[in-house]
Amino acid sequence: MRTSAEVVAAYWATAQGRDWVAFGALLADDIVYDLSQTRELIRGRDKYVRFNQEFPGDWALTIIRLVATGAHVATWTSFTVDGTEAPGLCFFDLDSAGRIAHITDFWPERYEPPTWRKHLVERY
Amino acid sequence: MRTSAEVVAAYWATAQGRDWVAFGALLADDIVYDLSQTRELIRGRDKYVRFNQEFPGDWALTIIRLVATGAHVATWTSFTVDGTEAPGLCFFDLDSAGRIAHITDFWPERYEPPTWRKHLVERY
Repeated sequence: MRTSAEVVAAYWATAQGRDWVAFGALLADDIVYDLSQTRELIRGRDKYVRFNQEFPGDWALTIIRLVATGAHVATWTSFTVDGTEAPGLCFFDLDSAGRIAHITDFWPERYEPPTWRKHLVERY
Repeated sequence: MRTSAEVVAAYWATAQGRDWVAFGALLADDIVYDLSQTRELIRGRDKYVRFNQEFPGDWALTIIRLVATGAHVATWTSFTVDGTEAPGLCFFDLDSAGRIAHITDFWPERYEPPTWRKHLVERY
């Protein structure tokens, strides 16, 4: 059986390659995808594959970090959507068959820094 | 030598315990802390310990996930600041001495969901 890190590496490779059959085969039937910032859930392989197929814009991804302990995996990916870069952060839980059963996905956005730490920071 | 997962578990335990001496001992002298959403950097152990000491509000944290591969660690923590909960996501890189040399920290905020995926999601 593949390691959990290998499963999630294949998840991103098949997404990037738009190989939705291979992508779907990595997912548990009853996968739950949690977009916690918007309090949205997508339940089940079919809907979750469709979500990815229908994701708007011309997008590409690269993996910045992929770390794993047992059945838990975290990734930091760089997404470019229609020429704009944004980070995506995912926490995956695999089931005992080595399929992805749960994903919590975060899309952190830019914000203006507060002033309380101004004496400690530099901007880039 | 402690594993990278143990070092980062101690990082969060000493932060929660306000044990700034033990916290600082886990950090490389030239640690770089990157708040990429605001394009802020904090360089060096002294400034970074002060940043944590001066962090405003009455805060407490719990670890939701801590995953590690080699010198790379990712954590998803739940922060409560003055009664409001927010997730914090950190990616750590350790140096060859097992000290934390680089942290990229993300604070994803709530946002309103786009409509294109409305037929696939449920809200909670």
